[in-house]
Amino acid sequence: MDLKDYVRDIKDFPSDGIVFKDVTPLLGNPIALKFAAEALLALVENQKIDKVVGMESRGFFFASMLASELKAGFVPVRKSGKLPYKTMSEAFSLEYGTDTLEIHIDGIKEGEKVLVHDDVLATGGTAAAVCKLVERLGGEIVQCNFLIELDFLKGSEKLKNYSVKSLLHY
Amino acid sequence: MDLKDYVRDIKDFPSDGIVFKDVTPLLGNPIALKFAAEALLALVENQKIDKVVGMESRGFFFASMLASELKAGFVPVRKSGKLPYKTMSEAFSLEYGTDTLEIHIDGIKEGEKVLVHDDVLATGGTAAAVCKLVERLGGEIVQCNFLIELDFLKGSEKLKNYSVKSLLHY
Repeated sequence: MDLKDYVRDIKDFPSDGIVFKDVTPLLGNPIALKFAAEALLALVENQKIDKVVGMESRGFFFASMLASELKAGFVPVRKSGKLPYKTMSEAFSLEYGTDTLEIHIDGIKEGEKVLVHDDVLATGGTAAAVCKLVERLGGEIVQCNFLIELDFLKGSEKLKNYSVKSLLHY
Repeated sequence: MDLKDYVRDIKDFPSDGIVFKDVTPLLGNPIALKFAAEALLALVENQKIDKVVGMESRGFFFASMLASELKAGFVPVRKSGKLPYKTMSEAFSLEYGTDTLEIHIDGIKEGEKVLVHDDVLATGGTAAAVCKLVERLGGEIVQCNFLIELDFLKGSEKLKNYSVKSLLHY
Protein backbone atom coordinates (compact mmCIF):
# COMPACT_ATOMS: atom_id res chain seq x y z
CA MET A 1 0.00 0.00 0.00
CA ASP A 2 1.41 3.42 -0.93
CA LEU A 3 0.21 5.84 1.74
CA LYS A 4 1.17 8.79 -0.47
CA ASP A 5 -1.92 7.95 -2.54
CA TYR A 6 -3.92 9.15 0.49
CA VAL A 7 -2.07 12.45 1.04
CA ARG A 8 -3.53 15.37 -0.86
CA ASP A 9 -1.64 18.51 -1.90
CA ILE A 10 -3.50 21.75 -1.15
CA LYS A 11 -1.94 24.75 -2.83
CA ASP A 12 -1.66 28.10 -1.03
CA PHE A 13 -2.78 26.76 2.37
CA PRO A 14 -2.55 28.11 5.02
CA SER A 15 -0.97 31.00 3.07
CA ASP A 16 0.16 31.84 -0.46
CA GLY A 17 3.04 29.81 -1.82
CA ILE A 18 2.68 26.94 0.69
CA VAL A 19 1.72 23.46 -0.56
CA PHE A 20 -0.03 21.83 2.41
CA LYS A 21 0.03 18.05 2.86
CA ASP A 22 -3.55 17.10 3.75
CA VAL A 23 -3.69 13.73 5.52
CA THR A 24 -7.48 13.62 5.95
CA PRO A 25 -7.94 11.18 3.01
CA LEU A 26 -5.54 8.83 4.81
CA LEU A 27 -7.39 9.22 8.13
CA GLY A 28 -10.75 8.69 6.44
CA ASN A 29 -9.78 5.40 4.81
CA PRO A 30 -9.99 2.51 7.32
CA ILE A 31 -7.25 0.46 5.65
CA ALA A 32 -4.85 3.39 5.23
CA LEU A 33 -5.49 4.54 8.83
CA LYS A 34 -4.64 1.14 10.29
CA PHE A 35 -1.71 0.65 7.90
CA ALA A 36 -0.22 4.02 8.91
CA ALA A 37 -0.65 3.32 12.63
CA GLU A 38 1.07 -0.05 12.31
CA ALA A 39 3.88 1.42 10.20
CA LEU A 40 4.47 4.18 12.78
CA LEU A 41 4.59 1.52 15.51
CA ALA A 42 7.11 -0.46 13.48
CA LEU A 43 9.44 2.59 13.47
CA VAL A 44 9.72 2.22 17.25
CA GLU A 45 11.14 -1.31 16.87
CA ASN A 46 10.03 -2.73 20.21
CA GLN A 47 11.90 -0.11 22.22
CA LYS A 48 10.40 0.45 25.67
CA ILE A 49 8.23 3.60 25.74
CA ASP A 50 6.61 5.02 28.88
CA LYS A 51 4.95 8.10 27.36
CA VAL A 52 3.96 9.22 23.89
CA VAL A 53 3.92 13.01 23.57
CA GLY A 54 1.71 14.40 20.80
CA MET A 55 1.51 17.97 19.55
CA GLU A 56 -1.73 19.92 19.19
CA SER A 57 -3.80 19.34 17.14
CA ARG A 58 -2.84 17.05 14.27
CA GLY A 59 -0.27 15.20 16.37
CA PHE A 60 -3.21 13.94 18.45
CA PHE A 61 -4.51 11.90 15.49
CA PHE A 62 -1.96 9.12 15.96
CA ALA A 63 -0.28 9.83 19.32
CA SER A 64 -2.98 8.32 21.55
CA MET A 65 -3.29 5.29 19.27
CA LEU A 66 0.49 4.77 19.40
CA ALA A 67 0.44 5.14 23.19
CA SER A 68 -2.30 2.56 23.59
CA GLU A 69 -0.52 0.03 21.35
CA LEU A 70 2.84 0.61 23.09
CA LYS A 71 1.19 0.21 26.53
CA ALA A 72 2.36 3.75 27.27
CA GLY A 73 0.56 6.86 28.50
CA PHE A 74 -0.34 9.74 26.18
CA VAL A 75 0.70 13.29 27.03
CA PRO A 76 -0.63 16.23 25.00
CA VAL A 77 1.48 19.31 24.33
CA ARG A 78 -0.76 22.28 23.65
CA LYS A 79 -0.65 25.93 22.76
CA SER A 80 -0.49 28.50 25.53
CA GLY A 81 -3.50 28.62 27.88
CA LYS A 82 -5.16 25.38 26.73
CA LEU A 83 -3.92 22.97 29.40
CA PRO A 84 -5.84 23.33 32.66
CA TYR A 85 -3.28 22.19 35.27
CA LYS A 86 0.18 23.57 36.16
CA THR A 87 2.34 23.80 33.05
CA MET A 88 5.91 24.27 31.88
CA SER A 89 6.26 26.51 28.77
CA GLU A 90 8.71 26.74 25.92
CA ALA A 91 8.73 29.55 23.36
CA PHE A 92 9.96 28.90 19.84
CA SER A 93 10.53 30.98 16.73
CA LEU A 94 8.18 31.08 13.76
CA GLU A 95 8.88 32.81 10.47
CA TYR A 96 7.48 35.99 12.03
CA GLY A 97 7.45 36.24 15.82
CA THR A 98 7.23 33.42 18.37
CA ASP A 99 4.75 30.87 19.67
CA THR A 100 4.57 29.03 22.99
CA LEU A 101 3.91 25.38 23.77
CA GLU A 102 2.98 23.94 27.14
CA ILE A 103 3.06 20.58 28.88
CA HIS A 104 1.61 19.61 32.26
CA ILE A 105 4.38 19.49 34.86
CA ASP A 106 3.25 16.00 35.90
CA GLY A 107 3.04 14.76 32.29
CA ILE A 108 6.50 13.19 32.33
CA LYS A 109 8.36 11.77 35.32
CA GLU A 110 12.14 11.74 35.77
CA GLY A 111 13.73 8.97 33.71
CA GLU A 112 10.69 8.08 31.62
CA LYS A 113 11.31 6.92 28.04
CA VAL A 114 9.47 9.16 25.60
CA LEU A 115 8.30 8.92 21.99
CA VAL A 116 7.59 12.35 20.49
CA HIS A 117 5.07 12.24 17.63
CA ASP A 118 3.63 14.78 15.20
CA ASP A 119 1.96 14.45 11.83
CA VAL A 120 4.42 16.57 9.83
CA LEU A 121 8.08 17.51 10.38
CA ALA A 122 8.60 20.81 8.57
CA THR A 123 11.22 23.28 9.91
CA GLY A 124 11.44 21.38 13.20
CA GLY A 125 10.80 24.37 15.46
CA THR A 126 7.76 22.83 17.12
CA ALA A 127 9.34 19.41 17.64
CA ALA A 128 12.54 20.93 19.04
CA ALA A 129 10.47 22.91 21.58
CA VAL A 130 8.58 19.75 22.57
CA CYS A 131 11.86 17.87 23.05
CA LYS A 132 13.12 20.65 25.33
CA LEU A 133 9.94 20.43 27.43
CA VAL A 134 10.29 16.66 27.77
CA GLU A 135 13.94 16.95 28.80
CA ARG A 136 13.26 19.77 31.27
CA LEU A 137 10.85 17.37 32.98
CA GLY A 138 13.56 14.69 33.11
CA GLY A 139 12.27 12.53 30.27
CA GLU A 140 14.58 10.65 27.90
CA ILE A 141 13.67 10.94 24.22
CA VAL A 142 13.86 7.56 22.53
CA GLN A 143 12.58 8.73 19.14
CA CYS A 144 10.82 11.56 17.35
CA ASN A 145 8.53 10.12 14.72
CA PHE A 146 6.41 11.72 12.06
CA LEU A 147 3.87 10.64 9.52
CA ILE A 148 5.42 13.03 6.96
CA GLU A 149 8.81 14.71 6.71
CA LEU A 150 9.34 17.62 4.32
CA ASP A 151 13.03 16.88 3.64
CA PHE A 152 13.68 20.17 1.82
CA LEU A 153 12.94 22.14 5.02
CA LYS A 154 15.74 20.28 6.86
CA GLY A 155 13.79 19.95 10.12
CA SER A 156 15.82 16.91 11.13
CA GLU A 157 18.88 19.18 11.51
CA LYS A 158 17.12 20.92 14.42
CA LEU A 159 16.60 17.46 15.96
CA LYS A 160 20.09 16.10 15.31
CA ASN A 161 20.55 14.99 18.94
CA TYR A 162 17.63 12.58 18.59
CA SER A 163 16.62 9.56 16.58
CA VAL A 164 14.25 10.95 13.92
CA LYS A 165 12.10 8.59 11.83
CA SER A 166 9.39 9.48 9.33
CA LEU A 167 7.02 7.28 7.40
CA LEU A 168 6.73 9.41 4.25
CA HIS A 169 9.35 11.74 2.79
CA TYR A 170 8.80 14.59 0.33
CA MET B 1 -11.14 0.16 37.60
CA ASP B 2 -12.84 3.46 38.43
CA LEU B 3 -11.87 5.89 35.68
CA LYS B 4 -13.10 8.80 37.79
CA ASP B 5 -9.95 8.32 39.89
CA TYR B 6 -8.07 9.59 36.81
CA VAL B 7 -10.21 12.67 36.15
CA ARG B 8 -9.03 15.80 37.94
CA ASP B 9 -11.19 18.78 38.87
CA ILE B 10 -9.63 22.15 37.99
CA LYS B 11 -11.46 25.06 39.58
CA ASP B 12 -12.05 28.31 37.64
CA PHE B 13 -10.81 26.95 34.29
CA PRO B 14 -11.17 28.18 31.60
CA SER B 15 -13.01 30.97 33.44
CA ASP B 16 -14.22 31.85 36.95
CA GLY B 17 -16.88 29.60 38.39
CA ILE B 18 -16.26 26.68 35.99
CA VAL B 19 -14.98 23.36 37.36
CA PHE B 20 -13.09 21.79 34.46
CA LYS B 21 -12.80 18.01 34.14
CA ASP B 22 -9.15 17.36 33.27
CA VAL B 23 -8.71 13.96 31.63
CA THR B 24 -4.92 14.17 31.18
CA PRO B 25 -4.24 11.88 34.20
CA LEU B 26 -6.42 9.26 32.49
CA LEU B 27 -4.60 9.71 29.15
CA GLY B 28 -1.22 9.55 30.86
CA ASN B 29 -1.89 6.23 32.60
CA PRO B 30 -1.41 3.30 30.18
CA ILE B 31 -3.94 1.08 31.93
CA ALA B 32 -6.61 3.79 32.26
CA LEU B 33 -6.07 4.86 28.63
CA LYS B 34 -6.60 1.34 27.31
CA PHE B 35 -9.49 0.67 29.70
CA ALA B 36 -11.28 3.86 28.57
CA ALA B 37 -10.77 3.07 24.87
CA GLU B 38 -12.18 -0.42 25.32
CA ALA B 39 -15.12 0.85 27.37
CA LEU B 40 -15.95 3.47 24.70
CA LEU B 41 -15.83 0.71 22.07
CA ALA B 42 -18.16 -1.43 24.18
CA LEU B 43 -20.76 1.39 24.08
CA VAL B 44 -21.00 0.87 20.31
CA GLU B 45 -22.09 -2.76 20.83
CA ASN B 46 -20.84 -4.19 17.52
CA GLN B 47 -22.94 -1.82 15.43
CA LYS B 48 -21.48 -1.25 11.96
CA ILE B 49 -19.62 2.09 11.78
CA ASP B 50 -18.12 3.54 8.58
CA LYS B 51 -16.76 6.81 10.00
CA VAL B 52 -15.89 8.13 13.43
CA VAL B 53 -16.19 11.91 13.61
CA GLY B 54 -14.11 13.61 16.33
CA MET B 55 -14.24 17.21 17.45
CA GLU B 56 -11.17 19.45 17.74
CA SER B 57 -9.08 19.14 19.81
CA ARG B 58 -9.85 16.89 22.75
CA GLY B 59 -12.22 14.73 20.71
CA PHE B 60 -9.18 13.68 18.70
CA PHE B 61 -7.70 11.87 21.73
CA PHE B 62 -9.99 8.85 21.35
CA ALA B 63 -11.72 9.28 17.96
CA SER B 64 -8.90 7.96 15.78
CA MET B 65 -8.32 5.05 18.17
CA LEU B 66 -12.02 4.18 18.06
CA ALA B 67 -12.01 4.42 14.25
CA SER B 68 -9.04 2.09 13.94
CA GLU B 69 -10.60 -0.52 16.27
CA LEU B 70 -13.98 -0.30 14.53
CA LYS B 71 -12.30 -0.67 11.09
CA ALA B 72 -13.80 2.72 10.24
CA GLY B 73 -12.29 5.93 8.89
CA PHE B 74 -11.65 8.95 11.11
CA VAL B 75 -13.00 12.38 10.13
CA PRO B 76 -11.95 15.48 12.08
CA VAL B 77 -14.33 18.39 12.64
CA ARG B 78 -12.35 21.56 13.21
CA LYS B 79 -12.80 25.22 13.97
CA SER B 80 -13.20 27.67 11.13
CA GLY B 81 -10.24 27.98 8.76
CA LYS B 82 -8.27 24.96 10.02
CA LEU B 83 -9.27 22.36 7.43
CA PRO B 84 -7.39 22.77 4.15
CA TYR B 85 -9.83 21.31 1.59
CA LYS B 86 -13.40 22.34 0.67
CA THR B 87 -15.57 22.48 3.77
CA MET B 88 -19.16 22.67 4.93
CA SER B 89 -19.73 24.96 7.95
CA GLU B 90 -22.19 25.07 10.81
CA ALA B 91 -22.48 27.95 13.26
CA PHE B 92 -23.65 27.32 16.81
CA SER B 93 -24.38 29.43 19.87
CA LEU B 94 -22.08 29.83 22.81
CA GLU B 95 -22.92 31.60 26.05
CA TYR B 96 -21.83 34.84 24.37
CA GLY B 97 -21.82 34.97 20.57
CA THR B 98 -21.35 32.11 18.14
CA ASP B 99 -18.65 29.76 16.91
CA THR B 100 -18.28 27.84 13.64
CA LEU B 101 -17.30 24.24 13.00
CA GLU B 102 -16.22 22.76 9.67
CA ILE B 103 -16.01 19.35 8.05
CA HIS B 104 -14.47 18.40 4.70
CA ILE B 105 -17.22 17.93 2.12
CA ASP B 106 -15.76 14.53 1.18
CA GLY B 107 -15.45 13.45 4.83
CA ILE B 108 -18.76 11.56 4.85
CA LYS B 109 -20.47 9.87 1.93
CA GLU B 110 -24.24 9.48 1.48
CA GLY B 111 -25.57 6.66 3.64
CA GLU B 112 -22.45 6.11 5.75
CA LYS B 113 -22.98 5.04 9.37
CA VAL B 114 -21.36 7.52 11.73
CA LEU B 115 -20.18 7.50 15.34
CA VAL B 116 -19.79 11.04 16.72
CA HIS B 117 -17.27 11.26 19.57
CA ASP B 118 -16.08 13.99 21.92
CA ASP B 119 -14.39 13.95 25.29
CA VAL B 120 -17.03 15.90 27.22
CA LEU B 121 -20.76 16.48 26.66
CA ALA B 122 -21.58 19.79 28.35
CA THR B 123 -24.40 21.97 26.94
CA GLY B 124 -24.46 19.93 23.71
CA GLY B 125 -24.08 22.89 21.35
CA THR B 126 -20.91 21.57 19.74
CA ALA B 127 -22.17 18.01 19.35
CA ALA B 128 -25.50 19.18 17.88
CA ALA B 129 -23.62 21.25 15.28
CA VAL B 130 -21.44 18.25 14.39
CA CYS B 131 -24.54 16.05 13.99
CA LYS B 132 -26.03 18.63 11.61
CA LEU B 133 -22.85 18.63 9.50
CA VAL B 134 -22.85 14.83 9.30
CA GLU B 135 -26.50 14.75 8.28
CA ARG B 136 -26.10 17.54 5.72
CA LEU B 137 -23.46 15.30 4.07
CA GLY B 138 -25.93 12.38 4.05
CA GLY B 139 -24.46 10.44 6.96
CA GLU B 140 -26.59 8.44 9.40
CA ILE B 141 -25.70 8.95 13.05
CA VAL B 142 -25.58 5.63 14.86
CA GLN B 143 -24.43 7.02 18.20
CA CYS B 144 -22.94 10.06 19.91
CA ASN B 145 -20.53 8.93 22.56
CA PHE B 146 -18.57 10.81 25.17
CA LEU B 147 -15.96 10.06 27.74
CA ILE B 148 -17.70 12.38 30.21
CA GLU B 149 -21.24 13.75 30.43
CA LEU B 150 -22.04 16.69 32.71
CA ASP B 151 -25.62 15.64 33.42
CA PHE B 152 -26.59 18.92 35.12
CA LEU B 153 -26.02 20.84 31.86
CA LYS B 154 -28.64 18.66 30.10
CA GLY B 155 -26.67 18.42 26.84
CA SER B 156 -28.41 15.17 25.94
CA GLU B 157 -31.66 17.12 25.49
CA LYS B 158 -30.07 18.91 22.52
CA LEU B 159 -29.23 15.46 21.10
CA LYS B 160 -32.59 13.83 21.81
CA ASN B 161 -32.93 12.55 18.22
CA TYR B 162 -29.80 10.42 18.66
CA SER B 163 -28.52 7.57 20.75
CA VAL B 164 -26.30 9.25 23.36
CA LYS B 165 -23.94 7.19 25.53
CA SER B 166 -21.32 8.41 27.97
CA LEU B 167 -18.78 6.51 29.98
CA LEU B 168 -18.68 8.76 33.05
CA HIS B 169 -21.49 10.88 34.44
CA TYR B 170 -21.21 13.86 36.79
